Amino acid sequence: MENKNNPLVIFTPSGKRGEFPVGTPILTAARQLGVDLDSVCGGRGICSRCQITPSFGEFSKHGVTVQNNAISDWNSVEERYKSKRGMIDGRRLGCQATVQGDIVIDVPPESQVHKQVVRKRAEARDILINPTTRLFYVEVEQPDMHKPSGDLERLIEALDKEWNLSSLEADFSILKKIQTALRKGEWKVTCAIHSDTNSNKSNIVEIWPGYYEGSIYGMAVDLGSTTIAAHLCDLQTGEVVASSGSMNPQIRFGEDLMSRVSYSMMNSKGDEEMTSSVRAGMNELFSEVAQEANISTNLIMDAVFVCNPVMHHLFLGIDPFELGQAPFALATSNAINTKSSNLGLSQMHSASNVYLLPCIAGHVGADAAAVALSESPNTSEDLVLIVDVGTNAEILLGNKDKVLACSSPTGPAFEGAQISSGQRAAPGAIEHVEIDPTTKDPRFKVIGSDYWSDEIGFEDSIKSSGITGICGSGIIEMVAEMRMAGIVDGPGLIGSPEQTATSRCFQDGRTFSYLVYDGSASNGPKITITNRDIREIQMAKAALYSGARLLMDKFEVDNVDRIVLAGAFGAHISPKHAMALGMIPDCKLKNVSSAGNAAGTGARIALLNHSARSDIEKIVTEIHKIETAIEPRFQEHFVNASAIPNSVEKFPILETHVNLPLINFNMGNSKEGTRRRRRN
Amino acid sequence: MENKNNPLVIFTPSGKRGEFPVGTPILTAARQLGVDLDSVCGGRGICSRCQITPSFGEFSKHGVTVQNNAISDWNSVEERYKSKRGMIDGRRLGCQATVQGDIVIDVPPESQVHKQVVRKRAEARDILINPTTRLFYVEVEQPDMHKPSGDLERLIEALDKEWNLSSLEADFSILKKIQTALRKGEWKVTCAIHSDTNSNKSNIVEIWPGYYEGSIYGMAVDLGSTTIAAHLCDLQTGEVVASSGSMNPQIRFGEDLMSRVSYSMMNSKGDEEMTSSVRAGMNELFSEVAQEANISTNLIMDAVFVCNPVMHHLFLGIDPFELGQAPFALATSNAINTKSSNLGLSQMHSASNVYLLPCIAGHVGADAAAVALSESPNTSEDLVLIVDVGTNAEILLGNKDKVLACSSPTGPAFEGAQISSGQRAAPGAIEHVEIDPTTKDPRFKVIGSDYWSDEIGFEDSIKSSGITGICGSGIIEMVAEMRMAGIVDGPGLIGSPEQTATSRCFQDGRTFSYLVYDGSASNGPKITITNRDIREIQMAKAALYSGARLLMDKFEVDNVDRIVLAGAFGAHISPKHAMALGMIPDCKLKNVSSAGNAAGTGARIALLNHSARSDIEKIVTEIHKIETAIEPRFQEHFVNASAIPNSVEKFPILETHVNLPLINFNMGNSKEGTRRRRRN
Repeated sequence: MENKNNPLVIFTPSGKRGEFPVGTPILTAARQLGVDLDSVCGGRGICSRCQITPSFGEFSKHGVTVQNNAISDWNSVEERYKSKRGMIDGRRLGCQATVQGDIVIDVPPESQVHKQVVRKRAEARDILINPTTRLFYVEVEQPDMHKPSGDLERLIEALDKEWNLSSLEADFSILKKIQTALRKGEWKVTCAIHSDTNSNKSNIVEIWPGYYEGSIYGMAVDLGSTTIAAHLCDLQTGEVVASSGSMNPQIRFGEDLMSRVSYSMMNSKGDEEMTSSVRAGMNELFSEVAQEANISTNLIMDAVFVCNPVMHHLFLGIDPFELGQAPFALATSNAINTKSSNLGLSQMHSASNVYLLPCIAGHVGADAAAVALSESPNTSEDLVLIVDVGTNAEILLGNKDKVLACSSPTGPAFEGAQISSGQRAAPGAIEHVEIDPTTKDPRFKVIGSDYWSDEIGFEDSIKSSGITGICGSGIIEMVAEMRMAGIVDGPGLIGSPEQTATSRCFQDGRTFSYLVYDGSASNGPKITITNRDIREIQMAKAALYSGARLLMDKFEVDNVDRIVLAGAFGAHISPKHAMALGMIPDCKLKNVSSAGNAAGTGARIALLNHSARSDIEKIVTEIHKIETAIEPRFQEHFVNASAIPNSVEKFPILETHVNLPLINFNMGNSKEGTRRRRRN
Repeated sequence: MENKNNPLVIFTPSGKRGEFPVGTPILTAARQLGVDLDSVCGGRGICSRCQITPSFGEFSKHGVTVQNNAISDWNSVEERYKSKRGMIDGRRLGCQATVQGDIVIDVPPESQVHKQVVRKRAEARDILINPTTRLFYVEVEQPDMHKPSGDLERLIEALDKEWNLSSLEADFSILKKIQTALRKGEWKVTCAIHSDTNSNKSNIVEIWPGYYEGSIYGMAVDLGSTTIAAHLCDLQTGEVVASSGSMNPQIRFGEDLMSRVSYSMMNSKGDEEMTSSVRAGMNELFSEVAQEANISTNLIMDAVFVCNPVMHHLFLGIDPFELGQAPFALATSNAINTKSSNLGLSQMHSASNVYLLPCIAGHVGADAAAVALSESPNTSEDLVLIVDVGTNAEILLGNKDKVLACSSPTGPAFEGAQISSGQRAAPGAIEHVEIDPTTKDPRFKVIGSDYWSDEIGFEDSIKSSGITGICGSGIIEMVAEMRMAGIVDGPGLIGSPEQTATSRCFQDGRTFSYLVYDGSASNGPKITITNRDIREIQMAKAALYSGARLLMDKFEVDNVDRIVLAGAFGAHISPKHAMALGMIPDCKLKNVSSAGNAAGTGARIALLNHSARSDIEKIVTEIHKIETAIEPRFQEHFVNASAIPNSVEKFPILETHVNLPLINFNMGNSKEGTRRRRRN
């Protein structure tokens, strides 16, 4: 390299450069310069991960002119690979092509070890691919009677030598497979190796004879009180290859968290029943998602879970009893690194490790940590309020100086549960609504159709699904629209047909209900909003609002710069309606954005990038936890927040709507106001 | 401590001394000086492990005079302990008694952390108690809502602070127990913690509320091809509290190792059958031994296994196929540290770790390593030959400069198997024999009786057991005595009644047999030695001898300084008869000793002292392995070694025996000599 006649090699986009003797493989040059160029087979022309593009011509920026013969000729290994599997014209294999003169080499994104998964939202960081479990191809020395050492010891030695993987151990199950794999692969094998970020140890999880051509996968799971969402990711590309959601089967033990804690207190082994139930549900979901992606569950070699503290404990097999009473002591708050078998996860590789993000506090769980990982309030220049809406809402407020967190028991209403016509987000569910303030008639969109209900083509588009109910985001819009259309008053009562001047409002027991859609003529459902539904939404939104308000008090601010709505259905909430409903504090509407399932995204980041795990483990120790249950001001905010504001005044954007007077339909002496708030 | 008025504290037997302020607890002084004084409770007057004896009077050797008031008065904690549990007069609790003046403190052996277990044999090292799993008592901070951290995190913090246990983790099962234990113990708990020698990591295995007063145990297991021997040890005192042995249930798949390898080759899942079988046998044995000691199997928190390579693989669940053919590649040769659950060990603590010693080579297993650990040939000044007699014999030859090792397939004859009247060592089995060279009549001793068969009292002493067969050591003596009495000739044939001049020899098919005992009158067995029995013993002893000879060739010596006989029944072999039979090379009889079950002892050392584990892991890398299967000279030695020498010539000590001429009973054209040798 010191020979000044050696050709110059310049890599783009990194700009790294060095001089190398003629004949040096490009891969070798890249490795010596620390250029991020992938290789699984260690430069044997098998894996094709090291594809590069040589550039020719004059590069005045770099001060070189590249001749056509600056790189070695196309060779038979490259020809065989290209004819068998195809390769983009102009590409070369970095392990085959060698330096012959000054050259500029471009490393395309897919040839980088640490690829990036680009996230769509402008404010979101891209995800760097750097998974805990990776594939390594290696050639192992054959046994020698005169230097007896085990096959495993020689495999480990080879991996250490070729890949610099020290502190390497093998899962116990490898012992049973290693001898067959080595001999079948003629002393060449591919290993899937898991590296633990904290202990700096690596563990061989699987072994295949020869070069393993397939992919390995990981599952990112958002385990909510009501729903479970799972995303199967290719651990090499970062791509989500299949996703699925299911109801949390624990729902039969209680819809909200507090009722599950009670179930465990009232029933001996109640916690074990719930643990079995959620684990069984998880196995079903894993198997479903693997089937959707058409892969064996054995190829799921990593999983990351995020969940609230009660689900966290129940999933780990810990009685959540202590979380039901002050001081809300967690059995463990740190991140959990454990074997999938400890969690009864049978539908993934039996030797795989799984990871649970750390909990922030007894009421602020790993899901909140995941939201923090995804949304990075700790690096934000402006003050951001992040609200993860679910059965239990996680709320974060902060900027680069300080981050506060709390959780708030919204109940399952936002997810369509405890709502008379509520349902989960699925084809047929009403997800968007507008109510004409004059006629009081609604128009709506259902999931699975692109048409509004009053548009031509709507009927055809919903033929297969029908109109089945209202999902969470639909309910929020519905109540906000009802308020804006003057069907519901500030305290939350639906008016009579006379008060509202529409026959859609009708007497329904002691209160009135509003008819959204009547499908009874064609044996369909009659979809209505009852006054009890309004109450459920009022309580849920009041809990959410008071949590956010409490954090603002603690931060000593009256306004936030921006609001991020997150949650399993966070992507679907209309910011306008959320603000109209009074779910969230006032903020410029253009500064309210939707982050989708931020907790799920956080899980995906921790799945795909193992240094993100140490990041979040550090971040949670720096977040200030606020315990809503012991804050008198939370209660105060809650009581004040149950009314539905006269939103039209606030939103000039809603100018098509008639500005109604501050109506109040409560003529009698209703006891609704004194109804006790539940905690979950 | 710099104040020169501070009293002087001298500890015996260590001789460590220092000056400490008046009021310093003796335990504190001991810790600061690095004196080995035990404590589980950390000086809270609970565990009483820190008992010491203050001495008074003049100590000219130490240059001090100790006044009666040099130590604080007997206090209420000591009084309570003494009245509840008793304490030797003159003893004090080191954590309660404080320094008041110059004092001499004796630490009795049972108060040292690193107690020694004294071994009986002069040449054997004592065992230093320093187990991998130990008890620690600790007080944990209570949860605080304003500083939320999990109970586990606070427990780990407390253990680190009080006991300096960093890199501490908890077994997954602790998560389920921790909250109850902490609250039941009012934030005081005792933990059993396993420390891994190599990874420097510690793992909480069990947690008890408050101070746990009981003991914890470990099992040292010698897993042989034919028999399994298990010793249950108290991990705190090192004491063997119960022992038991059983037949290896794998025997039904083949008596020797090679036939088990064949079984696995001939039967799909044959290896799995054998694995299940030995693991089930192990569980039965563990449960039996625990019952004998009257303890719960949950208190067995560590186990160490030693075994030959085939048993090693079958126990680990590895198909031993490769061990049946050159190059005899082990799946793994290093020591195994794994969870008991990986080995299906249900009859010990479910979170416990187990350890298998390293294998030396494909035919020289962890049992040979254990023998090396127990007998330390690598530190011997003189050249020692160590022969571990079993179905497979492990042979070590060496001194502090070099150690060689090989194994030799003796077959199960030495353990009484494949011998017509053979049986395992149990009451009723003949274990010692003398044959009168004139009358050719035998006298013998059976296990369970102190009398020779021709002594008064013998009949009474064997009433309950009867005379049932001949055990391994009995067979060796029997054949040697038959040779010395002229009943068997050099090539190994039993003479006819005429040739031997006794009617005890009788025609038995094509050869003759010798009647040892006829119990048929009282429905007892007729115990005979057939010529086939003699052949079995000849092959076994030839295999043993040729292994030893081969190592001597490699060491380039014709003599060894001493011989150690080891093995499950090694303690019972008569050195005189072993040499008479030609089992072992010539050596001064006084230099032949018996080490008992050295492999089992090695297992016990590794169980009780975790640094012995690293020792043996290092030692095995330095042992030169000789593969008998590929050494032509082994075969040569074997052929030459099958004859039974005319021992009387060699042993003047046997002068009471008549020196017979070199008889040869083989008159016909026997094919016995060409019978193929089996390898196991």
